Amino acid sequence: MHEPLSEEIEVSRRILEANEQSAQRNRALFARHKVFMVNLMGSPGAGKTSLLEKTIPALQDMRVAVIEGDIEGKQDKERVEAAGAVSAVQINTYGACHLLAHQAEHAVEKLDLSAVDLLFVENVGNLVCPAEFDLGESARVMVLGVTEGADKPLKYPLMFRKSEALLLNKMDLVDLCGCDIGVLKENALRVNPDIKIIELSCRTGEGIKDWVKWLRGKMKEIQSA
Amino acid sequence: MHEPLSEEIEVSRRILEANEQSAQRNRALFARHKVFMVNLMGSPGAGKTSLLEKTIPALQDMRVAVIEGDIEGKQDKERVEAAGAVSAVQINTYGACHLLAHQAEHAVEKLDLSAVDLLFVENVGNLVCPAEFDLGESARVMVLGVTEGADKPLKYPLMFRKSEALLLNKMDLVDLCGCDIGVLKENALRVNPDIKIIELSCRTGEGIKDWVKWLRGKMKEIQSA
Repeated sequence: MHEPLSEEIEVSRRILEANEQSAQRNRALFARHKVFMVNLMGSPGAGKTSLLEKTIPALQDMRVAVIEGDIEGKQDKERVEAAGAVSAVQINTYGACHLLAHQAEHAVEKLDLSAVDLLFVENVGNLVCPAEFDLGESARVMVLGVTEGADKPLKYPLMFRKSEALLLNKMDLVDLCGCDIGVLKENALRVNPDIKIIELSCRTGEGIKDWVKWLRGKMKEIQSA
Repeated sequence: MHEPLSEEIEVSRRILEANEQSAQRNRALFARHKVFMVNLMGSPGAGKTSLLEKTIPALQDMRVAVIEGDIEGKQDKERVEAAGAVSAVQINTYGACHLLAHQAEHAVEKLDLSAVDLLFVENVGNLVCPAEFDLGESARVMVLGVTEGADKPLKYPLMFRKSEALLLNKMDLVDLCGCDIGVLKENALRVNPDIKIIELSCRTGEGIKDWVKWLRGKMKEIQSA
């Protein structure tokens, strides 16, 4: 049997410690430039990029930049650029299932932060590990497709616990896919009683206004603090 | 910046090496007992457990056991037992986003392999890391909900590359969710020209027969080799 090696535990500790240092540097940098940064997380195909495609045009009064985290490819960067992001940077992890703060830190070097109000970092599609790594964000937001099922908060609790907002996407399919939305919300609130739940559909546009309103409120709250 | 530490690389090597040794022991054990083992992988909510709920009753002539891998909870174990699994064992990883071979090895100790023909190991819901860890399986099968989108093979290529079969689930929603099934299949075949693609819906039962037929054929092929 493979028990965790003591070196393994030590290496994990050092990785998390290095990550936290980078995250703190990112946080200080964003504060200095008055940039609000959202760490956007969720399963593959939950609709993170689709959400950005709907959100960016709804924030015409803001300069929105995006850092895209993907295992491979740059399709998502192209999509958010087409949606009107003032700038976009692609990170490819080539295997790693989550972003680390230092990757965000290097991507940020390619942005002119003085020309950015709001920065989205779209994490790698994964309902598990991204929740473990602080990137220096102002807020953590997760997207869950209702097609993923009502049991997800109980089976993957950490991300629900760590997120300020849960966007329930694909609401246009909710009756067709057999997801009990009442049970889903109840499960999410059991894991995190403070989580803000917003129902929406990136396909129909339903609920996008509510999400944008919440986001604007959160930005004001943080910037006046 | 955090560069991979040399200890980190060394620890990764040792983890993979220990994993491969456990996987080989599993493989030898399954061969000795003539048990066909399927490593079932896919995103959270792709429909892995739903697939088992449809598959087990369709294999009345076989004794099917299941090992369920989840971060937390035992709902899936209860579901496959209700579906008629002769036995089921729950593994909880409490944070880890994939199963390791030694976890399967320990779970197998709780099964009477002489009373099992087919063993499913349902991996943790994750489109990334499970593909990196051999569990000693006879076949790797992945489930993808068409609601996850047509771009997934290009963005998460490893699992598509390593799987023998790709089950495209939620076909009842394909026209509603805007997934171009032709593009999805083309992308999957670009990553792995040998992958067997089967369209199905665990909700309507459409295509389950095709999957069961493929599985029976694969079992015969391996057992007569």
